[in-house]
Formats: sequence, structure tokens, C-alpha cells
Amino acid sequence: MKQETMKVLVYHEPGKISLDDAPVPKILKSTDAIVKVTLSTICGSDIHIIGGHAGVQPPHILGHEFCGEIIELGSAINNFKIGDRVAISCVAFCGECFYCKQGLHYHCTDQDCTCFGTNRPNGPSLSGCQAEFVRLPYASNYMHKIPEGFTEEDMLFVGDILSTGYFGCEQVHIQPGESVLIIGAGPVGMCSALTAKLWGPAQIIIVDLDQSRLDVCLREGIADIALNPADVDIIKNVRELTNGRGADRVIEAIGSETTLQTALRAVRIGGSVCTVGSYAKPVTLPLNTYWVKNITLSMGFVPVDRLPELIKLIQAGKINTKFLMTHKAPLNDIIKGYDVFGNKKDDCLKWVITPYDR
Amino acid sequence: MKQETMKVLVYHEPGKISLDDAPVPKILKSTDAIVKVTLSTICGSDIHIIGGHAGVQPPHILGHEFCGEIIELGSAINNFKIGDRVAISCVAFCGECFYCKQGLHYHCTDQDCTCFGTNRPNGPSLSGCQAEFVRLPYASNYMHKIPEGFTEEDMLFVGDILSTGYFGCEQVHIQPGESVLIIGAGPVGMCSALTAKLWGPAQIIIVDLDQSRLDVCLREGIADIALNPADVDIIKNVRELTNGRGADRVIEAIGSETTLQTALRAVRIGGSVCTVGSYAKPVTLPLNTYWVKNITLSMGFVPVDRLPELIKLIQAGKINTKFLMTHKAPLNDIIKGYDVFGNKKDDCLKWVITPYDR
Amino acid sequence: MKQETMKVLVYHEPGKISLDDAPVPKILKSTDAIVKVTLSTICGSDIHIIGGHAGVQPPHILGHEFCGEIIELGSAINNFKIGDRVAISCVAFCGECFYCKQGLHYHCTDQDCTCFGTNRPNGPSLSGCQAEFVRLPYASNYMHKIPEGFTEEDMLFVGDILSTGYFGCEQVHIQPGESVLIIGAGPVGMCSALTAKLWGPAQIIIVDLDQSRLDVCLREGIADIALNPADVDIIKNVRELTNGRGADRVIEAIGSETTLQTALRAVRIGGSVCTVGSYAKPVTLPLNTYWVKNITLSMGFVPVDRLPELIKLIQAGKINTKFLMTHKAPLNDIIKGYDVFGNKKDDCLKWVITPYDR
Amino acid sequence: MKQETMKVLVYHEPGKISLDDAPVPKILKSTDAIVKVTLSTICGSDIHIIGGHAGVQPPHILGHEFCGEIIELGSAINNFKIGDRVAISCVAFCGECFYCKQGLHYHCTDQDCTCFGTNRPNGPSLSGCQAEFVRLPYASNYMHKIPEGFTEEDMLFVGDILSTGYFGCEQVHIQPGESVLIIGAGPVGMCSALTAKLWGPAQIIIVDLDQSRLDVCLREGIADIALNPADVDIIKNVRELTNGRGADRVIEAIGSETTLQTALRAVRIGGSVCTVGSYAKPVTLPLNTYWVKNITLSMGFVPVDRLPELIKLIQAGKINTKFLMTHKAPLNDIIKGYDVFGNKKDDCLKWVITPYDR
Repeated sequence: MKQETMKVLVYHEPGKISLDDAPVPKILKSTDAIVKVTLSTICGSDIHIIGGHAGVQPPHILGHEFCGEIIELGSAINNFKIGDRVAISCVAFCGECFYCKQGLHYHCTDQDCTCFGTNRPNGPSLSGCQAEFVRLPYASNYMHKIPEGFTEEDMLFVGDILSTGYFGCEQVHIQPGESVLIIGAGPVGMCSALTAKLWGPAQIIIVDLDQSRLDVCLREGIADIALNPADVDIIKNVRELTNGRGADRVIEAIGSETTLQTALRAVRIGGSVCTVGSYAKPVTLPLNTYWVKNITLSMGFVPVDRLPELIKLIQAGKINTKFLMTHKAPLNDIIKGYDVFGNKKDDCLKWVITPYDR
Repeated sequence: MKQETMKVLVYHEPGKISLDDAPVPKILKSTDAIVKVTLSTICGSDIHIIGGHAGVQPPHILGHEFCGEIIELGSAINNFKIGDRVAISCVAFCGECFYCKQGLHYHCTDQDCTCFGTNRPNGPSLSGCQAEFVRLPYASNYMHKIPEGFTEEDMLFVGDILSTGYFGCEQVHIQPGESVLIIGAGPVGMCSALTAKLWGPAQIIIVDLDQSRLDVCLREGIADIALNPADVDIIKNVRELTNGRGADRVIEAIGSETTLQTALRAVRIGGSVCTVGSYAKPVTLPLNTYWVKNITLSMGFVPVDRLPELIKLIQAGKINTKFLMTHKAPLNDIIKGYDVFGNKKDDCLKWVITPYDR
Repeated sequence: MKQETMKVLVYHEPGKISLDDAPVPKILKSTDAIVKVTLSTICGSDIHIIGGHAGVQPPHILGHEFCGEIIELGSAINNFKIGDRVAISCVAFCGECFYCKQGLHYHCTDQDCTCFGTNRPNGPSLSGCQAEFVRLPYASNYMHKIPEGFTEEDMLFVGDILSTGYFGCEQVHIQPGESVLIIGAGPVGMCSALTAKLWGPAQIIIVDLDQSRLDVCLREGIADIALNPADVDIIKNVRELTNGRGADRVIEAIGSETTLQTALRAVRIGGSVCTVGSYAKPVTLPLNTYWVKNITLSMGFVPVDRLPELIKLIQAGKINTKFLMTHKAPLNDIIKGYDVFGNKKDDCLKWVITPYDR
Repeated sequence: MKQETMKVLVYHEPGKISLDDAPVPKILKSTDAIVKVTLSTICGSDIHIIGGHAGVQPPHILGHEFCGEIIELGSAINNFKIGDRVAISCVAFCGECFYCKQGLHYHCTDQDCTCFGTNRPNGPSLSGCQAEFVRLPYASNYMHKIPEGFTEEDMLFVGDILSTGYFGCEQVHIQPGESVLIIGAGPVGMCSALTAKLWGPAQIIIVDLDQSRLDVCLREGIADIALNPADVDIIKNVRELTNGRGADRVIEAIGSETTLQTALRAVRIGGSVCTVGSYAKPVTLPLNTYWVKNITLSMGFVPVDRLPELIKLIQAGKINTKFLMTHKAPLNDIIKGYDVFGNKKDDCLKWVITPYDR
């Protein structure tokens, strides 16, 4: 007998979430798919949302980083079949609007599209993946078959943090032989570190106050040097490591005034900075000091069109993100997961969610 | 008999300048040249300097936008001769240091190099061109012969404001058919407007509070549309002109928090902004609103390696800046010039200085 | 009563075409549209096809450069309505395959897609626009509404020769102030000339043996200099116009060994060449001479994703192609049109076809 | 007592070389340096030269890939001192002419500059490094100090084959996740393979008829897949490895018609090919087949401005070329070296020359 209701994580008001029941979603359009969520995560932006900082209208089913198995397909989808295991972008998009054609899929203007588990201010809303099942509008645009011989664990992060980390590196245009500085060794910063090598830098320097995270970076070989501002002067150290000039390229992966100012001070004249952090308030920048520095500052969101390349790189063994999965438990335990991940307890990097255990 | 002293404009302290006497400069190194200044200007950054905002240490001979005639050449310079009339970059540079090789000549580390008429904080100092003669270190790097059939009036602005205006356009990567917004119709903003067409935009929109300057832009055909914030809502109007999206590319040519915020609001998602203004204080930017907009913001200073191309474009009749020369008088009248230009009296766009009338 | 049959130009075998009757096409899929052809052309590649050089399998309805009025729409198309007048790409494409996502729409792998009026070797076939009506598969991907106040005559060439001419310029990466050489002043070469200015070159030089075509280029102001190899030595003249170095960028718009060799000799060291010609046989290139010249040579086909920008530029008055329409007659006279256009009689640049006169 | 004469390898006529005596070079200009050659090589282009294919006018001292110790410095050089050990570009250049400013140093127009050990047709001539000492004009432009803790053996190839191999990769614009095909596993092809990873490809495929060289590539981990045309159909295999499409990027490192045609067939639609081979005669290319493939083909010579980055990458342990040094002997044995290297005896990859043993 077909399952009628499912367990879902619902955001009720700032600070309040619970594991509730909801109807299993149905195909609404011929371009939809329904997937059974086989693996998902709690993401930093979920914490941002339940803090009330992201403008998401409650009640809302959260979650946007996931893999799944196709259980139902709209009639217009030909290149997938029931039972396919797929990696999924955190953003649903139509593929035809102005922004989609520009590669800015997060800004898709279709009224059915936005990031899963969020809504845009007065805009579209989309149920999330901290659930047993999810409806995917325009699914064939952003589902990607998991290659033979690989699992959901290999591909889990391509749809959000790996893409976002990669985006930071892509935006700063690293040249072979350059020095890359990454500010913030959270999951996204780590993803920037591990993809930075795709552009051949001579050194990757990572900065964080959490020594255990820096230790992970060194142990996993994703950074050449780890600096802790509790111990050393970041600007001074970066200069010493870069002939006195500053880092050629900087990725800011936190989203605060302090760290963005550090990024702008640490970058060399003529260098570039990308911030992939989520900002909770305005920032003050001393442009009166920087305006002659010929810096480029960019910002933005997950480049969902690069998933095929990221999957190929994982498949080729050139990228591996499995070390991020420090914790794993069924959907039943998600409230505990929000506590452990949200409060960075127990050296948690990512809390990974397996299906609800009935 | 050779002239021993010359007239020079000296910055003495914030708010205080005078026309003084100084020794005529001499060749100090084999790579120097001495030029007789045949045409120069007062520039917006001179006003910034005498306001005390630029960190220039008084007393200092000001001026950095000029053409000249070579009267003496160091022994190492072979490709010029006495009597050559030359257009000159506002920045002296060695051509060999790390920054010069990167095209960031303003940041040349040679102790003899900086922008003419300025010094860098605790750094090199270089006498300016609001004088009868100027010494040019590493002169052959940045003197450019004025082509046969052309005059100093044709080429006067290539060394500073034309390059800077051009830089703004180059940084934002205008694609054919796009919409370009220029905030500020001062001399630099006008130079951005008149060079923007080199990248084939469908429309160039310029914004200023000074209607007479907007009228000049329309009359000279350097902008397609002129908007005055005193009359209209800039954001609303720009959106209406761009299918509701905002300008693809924005050049901010003023240097204030208000105008930079306008630039970031007026640019479309995925667009780019370059600020070529000089900032007097820090700015606050609502990155909490913009961070998902996929904007690129760049900033910086005159690209002196593009002078040959700009000279070729003037020579080919594709660029003409002569309309900017609204006022012209000998060096004798420069104090009046600072008043008229600095206070934007008499619809002055540029105050042009001819040689001292003895 | 609905029209059941229509007049069409059919290619029967090399050298043999006739104006025949065929059924009016019908909607086959929900993403199709049927347009009434309101204006079309004979194109150089039609001559290539009936010469038997293009591998098109007869019998086939020819024609691929056209505008139309929508008379029927598949159920999946929402953003157009019956009666809309549209400019149409010469290539139909699905928008979802690997090549479409790379912007290589001509190589779309969908079995319903290729260039109108052609087939690919052992591949898809698509009826052409030298007909009263055409079926457009995936129509919403490449139909573009003709803006209010503009006509088919304004937009006729965006779908093929204007895009192709533009493509040549885009591929060679013209920088402001550079010299552009265009070899061949046929319709495509003229379209390269008139779009080259979108990248701000200092001079545009065009070469052809047909003096009347060179005269058109000068009269229309789309080239600065016109050179006829019957009168002058092209290499010598180009060198003299470019400080002895050769042209920075060259577009070869003919497609022969001689003209491609001229392009590679005329380009400066470090410059780039794009060939947009259709080659009938292999070419021999003296790479033993060129290999140290640091040249980039590119080749390819119409970039159909740039139609919106080209339409905006025409709308803004920055591009005008109407001078190309030297001849205009109804579909009834198309056999004569093939003779006049194909044999370059009567200074014909483009033979434009209006609807069949019943 | 200062040495007056030195041993040098002289090219006398096609097929004829000998180890002769010549005067030790002296400083001629203030920008010269004299280095004692501490390590040099025989290069594939030396074989090309003595075959009479390169237009070098005999008699000429050959050799252009080397490191040295500075023994004398012109008065204008300040940033080096006697005794410095330096890696040296194979090309001497002035740094000021049009081509130097464009990064095309091999085409420097200064009459004292060209590739060491060669002359240009009717152009400048420069003695080579298969000698005990070499004069370096404009030495400070292209000598690079060997970093503390590293030796000539670490840096020997940066000045020629490593740069050239790198150039091939740079020209084809590899994107992360793409497939790179390298045709030719000679020393230059191997240098392309080992630098290709700096752009993050998913797979590097190398092709050669010499199985032992393919085995080296696999053993050293510089290629993921090695294909021998003696055993397999290259085009078929490359397609199978690339979803049926062909390689995204191809570097042709041999310089023959056959291998260049293979490159153009093996590259995918929309891909790019760079040839870094030296061609002895013209090549015929079936552009009638390729012209619609949207391919970009580039060609050219060693990018000597990238030496600092390559040195940094070696220093950081990201690149290692020492496995190429299969043979090492003093200058005394160079005639034997030409035989062994030139005829690919004894699995020789590079014949490395230590100083003359007196």
C-alpha cells in the first residue's frame, strides 16, 4: 500500500522546529519528479533560517542538500527512470528564463522555483528534503544520475556546499602558482580548500579559530598551511608567506564584517576576493583605504550548472568529500542533529540524515 | 641663457596653495627625461589633495595630467629625441617590478615612482606638472609621441581621466547589447561614458544632479539617456529601461556611500560594478541584501598601459575629448583656476593650463 | 477555409531546383509552432547546397533565414501567442542536450533539430523556409518577438548572416584600439564588418575582388579602408596600415585555401583569425612557417544564443542591415532569385523573398 | 688566471657538429651578464636545427636550455650578484618592445635578442649554452634565482620544455572536470601532461607509439590513461572515454600532419587544440569537414613570463620534472649525447650536460 503521510522537519518560528507529519507530495506537472530522500544533511543555512535571519516564512519544511531515488516521474521526463539514484541541486530551476540562461539559476523567475526548503521574500516557496519524499519541479534540469559504482555518500555534497565552495574559487580566478587564502574552515570553507587545487595554486592557506577544524584540513591534505588568529597575526603571516604582498586570491567563507575586512586587508594589490558567507547585517568597509588597491570583490550563490563536472571529478578520484560526514543518523534523530551541528558539538562537521526508521 | 628657476603651484597645507618659484629640474639618472609642460590641467584629485584627504605631504608641487615637449634626455633613452611632443601618463613606473609586470603600474615599488604631484604615505614623492618643467623618471616607459597632425589638445586627457574612465568600463566587462549605467557626470564619468561605446552596449545611461552636465552628455552624444535624481527615481527608471532587471554594468564615478549603494541597487543580479571614485571615508554596504545577487565589485586606478590604444582611437577619430576643455588660461592664472574648477563655477568641466606667460 | 497545400522551393539534385507544392506542416509535438513565412532570403549556403557540396539529401525544401507570423502553437508554449511576428534562428535546438548547454546549438543532438532547410549526414532533416509555412520544433527556444515599431525587414538577418558575421568578431577577441581585417565583402563579411565596431577597433579594413561591394562598405561606413587585391598587394598594404606588424584580428569570410593563407599571413604575431567561410575541400597551410607566430585560428557556426542582443542593438539603432536587401520579390520569382543571387548579377547582395502571391 | 677560451658545441652544416674551442664571452652592454653554465641539455629543437630544418645559419654554438652561475654582471644590473645560481629562459628579450609588452618575448625586436643557440632568418643570432660560458643580453629580464634548498636539477627545464608544455595547456583553456588528450609522449608532451593537472581535469590521456615512454607516464602518475596507436584505434578509444564526444582539450606535441589531423578529429565539437610541435613542412587539413566543429586551434612558443610561477610550483612540490633526466654526462661527451638522445637510444628522455671536465 502506498505511503500517504511522511515525517518532515518543520520550522515553526525562530528557534522552534519539530518533526511532524505531512502528506507525501504528488506530481503536479509533467516536468515534476518525486524522489525518496536517501541521504540528506543539515546545512549552515538551515541554522541561519531557524535563527530568523533568512526571511523564510514559517511553517516550512526545511532542507536542501540531498540525494534520492526516483519513485515517480512526470510524463515529459524521458532521460530518467523509476529507481534511478540521483544527486540533486539545492536549487530548482526552469532552465528557460533570463537568469537561467545566464547561469544564475538561483534567481530563476519561475513561480515554482527557488532553493529547496526556503521561500523568497514574497516569492516562491519549495518544500525541503528533511523529509521522506520531495517533489522536484523541472526535475530533469538538475537531477544527476549517480554513476555506477558510486553511492549517495560520495555525491551528497555536490548539490550545495561543494558547489558553493567551488564557486568561491572559480570567482577569484586562481592562476597556477598563486597563493590562495581561505577564511573560515567550516564545511563550505573546506569545500573551497579542497577544490582550490583544481586551479593549480602553489599554496592554500586556511584560517579559523577552531583548531580541530584546522587539524582536519591539514590531516586531509586540503590546505598546505593552517593559521589560527588566536595564536598568530593573520595579516603578518600571510604577508610573510607571500613575499610581503598578500594573498593573490581570497575566499571568505563566514559572512561577517570582521572576516570580510580581514579578507580585503590580506589580499594583495590587484588580487581578488569572493565572499560565500551569508550576511546577517550590513558591513562597513574602509574603501578610502582600499580604493587604490585594484581589488575585485565578488559574492554569490551556488553554481548549479557545474554539478556534472563535480560529479566527474569525484568519479575520477580527484575530489573526495566523505571526511565531512562526521555524524550520521536517521531522520528520527534530526532534532538532536540540529543541536549537535548547530552548536558545533563533538567536532561535528556535517550531520548526515539517513531515511526515517519506521 | 638657460632658465634656472620656474613657476610652480605648491600645496602648503590643507586649503592653502600658491604659485611659487622653484629650481628647474635636472636629469638625475640615465633613464630620466625633462619636459617643458605645454598643456596641463587641474584634476579632481588635486582638489582631494588640497582638502587634505589624500595623505600628500606638503609642501608639494601638484599636477599630474599633462603633455610636454622633451628638452633633455638621459643617455639610456634611444627612442625619443629633443623636441618630441609627448602625451604622458600620470604615473611614473619602472616597468620591471612585480606590480609593473602585472599591469598595476600605480603600485610600482621603485623609490623614484608614484603618481606625479603626489607622494605615497611614507613612500616616494614626485613633483607635479603644474609647473613649467617636469622630470620624468623612467620616461621612455610612459611618454608617447603625439602623432603627426595631432596636438596636445587632442591628447591631453589620455594620461589620467580618459584612462581612468576607460578603466571603469574595462573592469565591468560590458558585452555587446548590454545596458551601461554611469553614476556621476563629472569629467571621469564623462570619460567612462564616451569610452563605454567601445564595447558595443545597446544603451548608456548617465546620472548626475547637475543638469548642465547631463545636457553636455546628451549634446555630445556620449550617453543615450540622462537621469537627474532631483527629478526622477533612479532605481525605478533604470529598471524600466532594462526590462525590470537593472543595469548589466555600472560605473560609479563619484566615490561616496550613497552613490555606491545606488550602484549596487541599480545593477542587475549577476551584473558588475566598478567604482573609480576617490573615497574620503569608509562606506557601509548592506551585503545582507546583496550577497545573493552574484555581483562583482571592482575598484582601482588608471591603467597606464592602455595609452597607446587610446591614442590610436583618438587618431582614428573614434574618441574625442576636446569638449571637456571648457576653460583655458596660462599657469599665471592657476589660483583662479582652482577656484573655478574646484567650486564648479561657470559650468567648468576642465581647467586647462597653458605655459606661464613671462 | 484552411490552406492545405503550399508552394515550396525543392532541391532535387545538384544543380536542380523547382517551385513545387507540398502539404502545409502541422503541429507534431506540444513544443512545436507553425509560422507563416513573412520574409525570407536566399543564402550563400543554399548555393553551396545546390552545388552538392553540403551533403544535403534531396529532395529537400531549402531556406533557413526568415521571419514569420505565428499561426499555430503547441500546448506547451506559453510565452507567445497566435499572430506574434517573430525573428527566427536558422537552427532549431532542444536547449537541454550537452551541446545546447555549451552554446553549440547547431550541434544539438535532438533528432528533430538541425539547421532549417538541411539535414546532417545520416542525421536529422528539417524543412526550410523557402515556403509559405514552416514547422518549428522547440519553437520557444529560438523565436524572438519583433519589438513594437520594428518590422521583418529590420530583423531579417539576425537569425543567420548577422549572427555568423558577429560570431567571427566575437571569436577573435577584438580589443579596443586594434586593427581588424575582414577578407571577403559578401553578405557575411559585411555583417562581420558592421558588428566589428561593437568591440571598439581603431580601424576596420575589408578586402574583396568585387569593387562594387567594397564601394558599398565605404558608402555604408561599415569599413574604414577597402582593399582590392586586383589593385594592391594585400599583405604589404595591411602591414603599412599596422606599423609593419599585420592586423591584430582577421575574419576570413570566404572559405578557400587562398584566402585562409592570406588571413594567416596578414595577421600579426600573437593575433587571431576566425574563418566563417564554408569549405568545399581540404586546405594546405604552411604551419612550418606559422607555428612560431603564436596565432589562434578558430572556425564555426552561427551563435544562435546572441539573437536577443542583436535584436536589442538593432532596436537601439546601433546596427542596421537593411542596405543588404538589394532585391526583393515574392516566392513566385525564387528561381530567378537563385540565378541573380547565385551568379552575383546586378550587384545583388541579398535576394529577399516576400510571401507567395496567389 | 682567468680562462680565455672555452669548449663549445658547434653546428657546422646539416648533419655535422663538433666540440670546438671558442673565446670566453665578455660583457658588451651594461645590461649583460656572463654565466658559467652549470647544467644544460640537448633539446629536440637542436635535432631539428642540425637536420637543417630550422634555418639556423652555421657555424653556430647550439643549446638553449640551461642553468648557470653568474660570474660577471653589467653595471646596470642591481638585483643579482656574482655567484648567484640562476634558472634561465631559453629566449633573451628586451622587455620594452611591442611584442615583449604583449608577452610574445620570443618575437622581441631587439637586435641582440632571440632564442639562445639560434638565429632568426636574416635576423639576430645568439650563442648557445652547450658551452662553458654564455653571455646573456638584458639578463635581469629572464634570469631567476634558484630558491634556497633547490638545485639546478630541480629547475633545469623551466626555461624551455616545461614552459612549452605548460603553454600548450594554458592555450587550450582546460576547465575543471574536462578530458585532456596529449598526442606525443616526448619530453614536451610529458611536460604538458604533468602541468595539465594544474587546471583540474578529470582525466589526462596520453598517446605515443613508444610504449616505454607511455609506461614512464603511468609510472610517474602524470597521465591517467596511455594509448598506443600500434595497439588501439585512438579516435575510437578517446570517444569511449569521453561519452562519445571526443576530448575537450588536445595538445599536439609532435608537429606532423598525421598527428595534427588526429588532434582535430579527436577533439570534441567546441573544443580546442594547441600544437607545440615544430613543423618541417606544410600540412593539409580537411577544414571542409571541421569548419562546423567550432574548434579553436592555437600554436606558438615558450611563454617565458611564466617562469616565476613554474619555479614557485616546483618549490611547493606541486611539479617535479627530475624523472626526465635519464642521462647525465659532462660536456666532453656531448657528441655521444646527440647520438643517444637524437636517435632515442637507451630509453633516453633528456641528455643532461654537466660542466666540461678539464
